[in-house]
Amino acid sequence: MASKAFAVVAGVGPGTGAAVARRFARAYPVALLARSPENYESLVEEINKSGGKAIGISTDVSSPESVKSAFDKIQKEFNSTECAAAVFNASGRFVRKPLLEMSVEDFSAGWEVSCKGAFIFSQAVLPLLLKAVDGSKYPPTIIFTGATASIKANALMSSFASAKFAMRALSTSMAKEFAPQGIHVAHAVIDGVIDIPRTKEWLKDAPPEAKIGADDIAESYWNLHTQSKRCFTNEIDIRPMLEKW
Amino acid sequence: MASKAFAVVAGVGPGTGAAVARRFARAYPVALLARSPENYESLVEEINKSGGKAIGISTDVSSPESVKSAFDKIQKEFNSTECAAAVFNASGRFVRKPLLEMSVEDFSAGWEVSCKGAFIFSQAVLPLLLKAVDGSKYPPTIIFTGATASIKANALMSSFASAKFAMRALSTSMAKEFAPQGIHVAHAVIDGVIDIPRTKEWLKDAPPEAKIGADDIAESYWNLHTQSKRCFTNEIDIRPMLEKW
Amino acid sequence: MASKAFAVVAGVGPGTGAAVARRFARAYPVALLARSPENYESLVEEINKSGGKAIGISTDVSSPESVKSAFDKIQKEFNSTECAAAVFNASGRFVRKPLLEMSVEDFSAGWEVSCKGAFIFSQAVLPLLLKAVDGSKYPPTIIFTGATASIKANALMSSFASAKFAMRALSTSMAKEFAPQGIHVAHAVIDGVIDIPRTKEWLKDAPPEAKIGADDIAESYWNLHTQSKRCFTNEIDIRPMLEKW
Amino acid sequence: MASKAFAVVAGVGPGTGAAVARRFARAYPVALLARSPENYESLVEEINKSGGKAIGISTDVSSPESVKSAFDKIQKEFNSTECAAAVFNASGRFVRKPLLEMSVEDFSAGWEVSCKGAFIFSQAVLPLLLKAVDGSKYPPTIIFTGATASIKANALMSSFASAKFAMRALSTSMAKEFAPQGIHVAHAVIDGVIDIPRTKEWLKDAPPEAKIGADDIAESYWNLHTQSKRCFTNEIDIRPMLEKW
Repeated sequence: MASKAFAVVAGVGPGTGAAVARRFARAYPVALLARSPENYESLVEEINKSGGKAIGISTDVSSPESVKSAFDKIQKEFNSTECAAAVFNASGRFVRKPLLEMSVEDFSAGWEVSCKGAFIFSQAVLPLLLKAVDGSKYPPTIIFTGATASIKANALMSSFASAKFAMRALSTSMAKEFAPQGIHVAHAVIDGVIDIPRTKEWLKDAPPEAKIGADDIAESYWNLHTQSKRCFTNEIDIRPMLEKW
Repeated sequence: MASKAFAVVAGVGPGTGAAVARRFARAYPVALLARSPENYESLVEEINKSGGKAIGISTDVSSPESVKSAFDKIQKEFNSTECAAAVFNASGRFVRKPLLEMSVEDFSAGWEVSCKGAFIFSQAVLPLLLKAVDGSKYPPTIIFTGATASIKANALMSSFASAKFAMRALSTSMAKEFAPQGIHVAHAVIDGVIDIPRTKEWLKDAPPEAKIGADDIAESYWNLHTQSKRCFTNEIDIRPMLEKW
Repeated sequence: MASKAFAVVAGVGPGTGAAVARRFARAYPVALLARSPENYESLVEEINKSGGKAIGISTDVSSPESVKSAFDKIQKEFNSTECAAAVFNASGRFVRKPLLEMSVEDFSAGWEVSCKGAFIFSQAVLPLLLKAVDGSKYPPTIIFTGATASIKANALMSSFASAKFAMRALSTSMAKEFAPQGIHVAHAVIDGVIDIPRTKEWLKDAPPEAKIGADDIAESYWNLHTQSKRCFTNEIDIRPMLEKW
Repeated sequence: MASKAFAVVAGVGPGTGAAVARRFARAYPVALLARSPENYESLVEEINKSGGKAIGISTDVSSPESVKSAFDKIQKEFNSTECAAAVFNASGRFVRKPLLEMSVEDFSAGWEVSCKGAFIFSQAVLPLLLKAVDGSKYPPTIIFTGATASIKANALMSSFASAKFAMRALSTSMAKEFAPQGIHVAHAVIDGVIDIPRTKEWLKDAPPEAKIGADDIAESYWNLHTQSKRCFTNEIDIRPMLEKW
């Protein structure tokens, strides 16, 4: 591990977040943020045992205090103020309901994490990404995990889609503001079912290529990170071979 | 005034809101909602004097209680539970700032009104629009006023753009859910400077067609409202002849 | 008929084109262009009998000579060099085929009419629209009829979709070039089945609002035409109340 | 060179095409197609000298016969009927003119190559990509090089933009038809100035990261190619760090 700069992944569960953490741990010490420690504990152990370096911090990304405290701890534990790569993979409580049956709290649930949380996380990590601009092999990178609902607002999906549309706008605005300062900002539209324990029963009679591989997403995120200053991609879509779209 | 059903405009100021209120007042009793009474008082008087019927209600669209109270009052004053047309024209505090200089409150300001407010307003008015489906000459209509930032997220605009993207998603999701129930949901991307007192000094040496006319927006909203069930437009853009886009 | 300027509709069949011709004939002498005279003959008679003024000209819009000859005839017949409104409603031969089963001619069929034809028609009519700028009540207008395939390219639809995407780009580029000269350019995404003789058997058990009304499209086109210089809409979508999208 | 399958690049000049050819030559025998042999001769020599394998074929992609002949030759020279990767990088004559000053031939110039050519190339290469599905390490891939004009149609750009919009529609339609058969179809929106001899004088006082690196594009294309069946990206944008967009 030659690098002094670290990576951080917000929203680590058994799917994309974990895969991304594993992938980036091959190059950087990595901090895993999730609300519940059970979401990162075994992964932290796995990475540390296999020669990488990882810490996990229980964090509520919708709380500025919680996020600030997490980043204080990261910098102390890794003895570094430089962040090479940040991935925002958190999503709020998913609400799929007729509009007239939703409470204001239901409707806001998506935005609280996906957009306000993304903003709070970005404010905390951008100064550390900026510190890594000069010394980094690859342009410091922040990637946001979006969904089909980032670009398509279906019926009953007003909470999730409005939150994801909002996060996408945040990502684009940030890309335009921070690219000239050397930061690579990217957004991924994950357009299909990711193959994780929770989706085991979905599409179960279909072949493996009906679902998206979390490891494959991680590899694509890594490829975004390693793009040079002369080649920034700000948005990719990802879907399985057998997706209907 | 033959109609029993009323129209309601949220976000009445000296520009689009007022023009829309005047236009719809030619067909319906119209309720004007704004935070500050000075935004609607003279307009209410003007409409009532010129043969229309209008009431104004001080309302905070980001508060469910305030909106509920406004709609209770509207139904009582107009002695009707049917809404023929609703226009959501409110916008939150506009914040244009480098991302690292924004407070969480700054960032949330746009969303609180433009998206959460739009949701709260929609929840209150949709049941009254549904009641008007059978008796109305035109399909009951709800129109949201968007902006360039609804589809384009520029640097320093993360608060406004994320809020406006979110509102657009809400509008589309609502269109898909409520069109089959007879409601016409539309979103307008106002892509240019509207000619109102506040923008008097902008583009002041340019000819009149460098700005958008508020009365002209109102006419376009009316044309959306009068579309039949066999011809729903869900989104229009509006710009002046001399706009560069 | 007070107006000296005329309207012209290219692509007149029993659906949108005929309805648009009828609507604009209430304000202008109208020239109907179609390849086959049987597509406009009875309509020309109908308009002339009901107090309007119409001529029909057999035209191949993909041929510059044919289009030039048509416009020479229009100007002579109506004794006017001013065009108030032009609607391009022609579509090429519709090919829905697996890509490997298409001939180059199949693939090009859409583009030849929808895009090259739209270009040829535009070149012929723009000088006449420009002549109408000063004297017209409404900004001279050119409207292009698009389809779902203008913004969504599905499998087997490469011919039609590539042609319609191309026509949409032409429309936008033209809007940006000619709006400052006073011309209103608009594009309509017709997103659903239009209720015409040919689609009689489609959705036949569904209620009327499962299809788009051709007269309703015409009314929306008229509303586009009557927008002022301070309020140009460049794109509208149109679908029936019961469309799934 | 373990692979039996080959790669093919249409539209090889001194920029993207050459860089892509070099990159893919590290894994596959590569066929370079360009109208003029001087566009590929030195590159073919360079690749062959440095341990790769390359052939160049003078080809007019807008001619089905020319393309057929090229593919016959490729299969014979490489003794293989399997194509692992195909890149369509050709562009027609670039015309930037006021619409009324363009000839039909000017207007069609973009489409002839960018869209009709892309179709002809795709028809020739798809059967060879399909043959490579079972034996390939990576899903057989076809990538189309687009531009800003693929998604944005500016004034004076009607020829180029309509052609590029059309090609993008072709790419998407093809993706939906051929992904289920194992082919990865992708489209790249190159949104900025590529650093090639022809653009040497442009942005000449700006730092290197104001232009896109052709080698960097090639690396991103390679990364698209190596995505698994469980992670297809169908569109990426590419711009330099200092692009204003």
